[in-house]
Amino acid sequence: MEKLREMLDICIRHQTVLGYSLVSLLTVASEHIFSSVLFRCPCSSWNMLYGSVFLLVPALILFLLGFMVHARTWHLLTGICPREKRCRSGPRETSTRCCPVLMQVAARAAVAPLTWVAVALFRASFYECAASGSSLLKNLVCREKGGEACQELLFQIPCNEKLSEKIPGELQAQSQLLGWLVITITVTGYLIATCVSHCRSPVSYLQLKFQKIYWQKEWELFEIKAKEHATRLAEINTNSFFEGTNQEPIGTPSNEDWWKIS
Amino acid sequence: MEKLREMLDICIRHQTVLGYSLVSLLTVASEHIFSSVLFRCPCSSWNMLYGSVFLLVPALILFLLGFMVHARTWHLLTGICPREKRCRSGPRETSTRCCPVLMQVAARAAVAPLTWVAVALFRASFYECAASGSSLLKNLVCREKGGEACQELLFQIPCNEKLSEKIPGELQAQSQLLGWLVITITVTGYLIATCVSHCRSPVSYLQLKFQKIYWQKEWELFEIKAKEHATRLAEINTNSFFEGTNQEPIGTPSNEDWWKIS
Amino acid sequence: MEKLREMLDICIRHQTVLGYSLVSLLTVASEHIFSSVLFRCPCSSWNMLYGSVFLLVPALILFLLGFMVHARTWHLLTGICPREKRCRSGPRETSTRCCPVLMQVAARAAVAPLTWVAVALFRASFYECAASGSSLLKNLVCREKGGEACQELLFQIPCNEKLSEKIPGELQAQSQLLGWLVITITVTGYLIATCVSHCRSPVSYLQLKFQKIYWQKEWELFEIKAKEHATRLAEINTNSFFEGTNQEPIGTPSNEDWWKIS
Repeated sequence: MEKLREMLDICIRHQTVLGYSLVSLLTVASEHIFSSVLFRCPCSSWNMLYGSVFLLVPALILFLLGFMVHARTWHLLTGICPREKRCRSGPRETSTRCCPVLMQVAARAAVAPLTWVAVALFRASFYECAASGSSLLKNLVCREKGGEACQELLFQIPCNEKLSEKIPGELQAQSQLLGWLVITITVTGYLIATCVSHCRSPVSYLQLKFQKIYWQKEWELFEIKAKEHATRLAEINTNSFFEGTNQEPIGTPSNEDWWKIS
Repeated sequence: MEKLREMLDICIRHQTVLGYSLVSLLTVASEHIFSSVLFRCPCSSWNMLYGSVFLLVPALILFLLGFMVHARTWHLLTGICPREKRCRSGPRETSTRCCPVLMQVAARAAVAPLTWVAVALFRASFYECAASGSSLLKNLVCREKGGEACQELLFQIPCNEKLSEKIPGELQAQSQLLGWLVITITVTGYLIATCVSHCRSPVSYLQLKFQKIYWQKEWELFEIKAKEHATRLAEINTNSFFEGTNQEPIGTPSNEDWWKIS
Repeated sequence: MEKLREMLDICIRHQTVLGYSLVSLLTVASEHIFSSVLFRCPCSSWNMLYGSVFLLVPALILFLLGFMVHARTWHLLTGICPREKRCRSGPRETSTRCCPVLMQVAARAAVAPLTWVAVALFRASFYECAASGSSLLKNLVCREKGGEACQELLFQIPCNEKLSEKIPGELQAQSQLLGWLVITITVTGYLIATCVSHCRSPVSYLQLKFQKIYWQKEWELFEIKAKEHATRLAEINTNSFFEGTNQEPIGTPSNEDWWKIS
């Protein structure tokens, strides 16, 4: 029992890491399903389009979904239009305030799509299909041999294993090297971004740590209090409706107060 | 026991997401059953009609069912006609009030049909059947060869796997690309709509959160109170019927009051 | 234990939906049994009659059974004849009062037969048998070829799988398209009817909800009270019979009172 609680404690403390791992695992699994069950390279002039769509469109969709899931996006956007009119701040100041948060959200939303692209490049089937239809490869390979027939042969590469041995191109190797490149760039980018943001922070490391703990606690307490308050308010309203009595309303924070704490 | 309750709590908190996932899973399962058990492409001039019906009609039916299930539709429509006559508001004001709610309901009702269409396009059998009977493909492929015989061959594509290799057309690839297009448009549309609605909201994010909690609590309390009130009322009425006594009626809210809280 | 009670609660809340699902499932199962065990297309001039009977007569029987099961039919009809004689209301007023209720009962009784027809059309065996004997198909197909022999061939379609490939007609496709048509019309009809009835209701949505709860509670209490009252009455009567005493009768509602609450 003690051990179980400890395990849960560890899980809760590292929930962000665990969450991203889960997302990545799901991405890998779905990539496996897509590339083995649905993906059939047409082996014709559609190769380029078909391969690129399977490589990039799911990543785009995952990125958009990531934006939708992160609560901070909405925290930031809610009521930005009417607030703009009331106009305490010009558009430039707003963009200065929003930009870092948006970049943070984008960085978090990019975990799943980058996993997709990397895994897809390592498996190489999408890239092979797309590259075999590209005009770049055609120019590279088909200079010496007859154009049309060579093109047809290139299109058949993903469907015919023997062909890929005859024709030089090393598509699979290219794909996996690209995969390593994507991972390297991603990790380096994350590291630099974290360095810069920490370096420019106006507060010290321990204070930052304290802030994080404080925000989390505040959020928890806000939820509990809001639930209590809502229950009390609802009880009063329904009672006064059914019994015809007219109780005095309890104090609810005004709109202005809500703006300030957001 | 503690853990179980926590699990239930998580389920309740994410019930919308879980609900949509369940609906989507059911749609995928039924699509599988339909396309493997019932679907037999006639391989004749009926191809186009038959394929399109299997692709689009179930989606239409799911959309209508979605409308029927969502309580908000009825909340909105109930008594709109007699209320119109009493005429506090002109028709234009009513449409302004109804439009966003209707769009919200439509967006929710569209989850299942869009899943159907996307999955059906990925499986490609419906689209292949429909496209093999389309006059567009005939014009594209049959220009060089003899018209009638070529048309007959095209009709046979979905029933004969060897044929589909000879005749270019890449129907499966087209179908899956269309599937990706549908998904991309859907996700982008949802994201933009949510952005706009959040952006134009007159209240802040935390207040919105509080409102949601309040509405839920109010609804729960309303149900409990209504049940209590109904029991009391029914008891009084049946008693007065069997015993002939004539108890004074307890206060019940008037029709006008009901209109106001709706 | 808690969970079990919750499950039961959910079942009771959604009992109409569960009931219709059960009815539909039973219909599907019985359709399967009928069409695989009992149905043998005669492959002669009886085809048309035999197929139509298997397609439509069970649906008619299910519709009549549906009428018999629904309690409201009897609630409405009981005593309508003697009451008519006493004649508070003309026949026109009665029909105005009965019409919406009758339509509601008909809509509920139509669930099972429509399921039957839709499933039978999707399986296509009944329709194939009926259509192969129809004179419409004969006129369509047999114009060029010799009349009598062609007719004989047509009759043999459901019994001979090779024939159906030679003769165009796409009976299975037609049958399934008809099935989709039936389902689409049904769902659209239900949606429109519900819309209209909700739209013309004189009370608001929440009041409607309250009314439903009230009726249910009243019915429950009426049953309990009626049982109590009947027990008391029976006790008094048997007692007074065996012991010869003549207790004063307890108040029982008069016939007039009963009419009013019905």
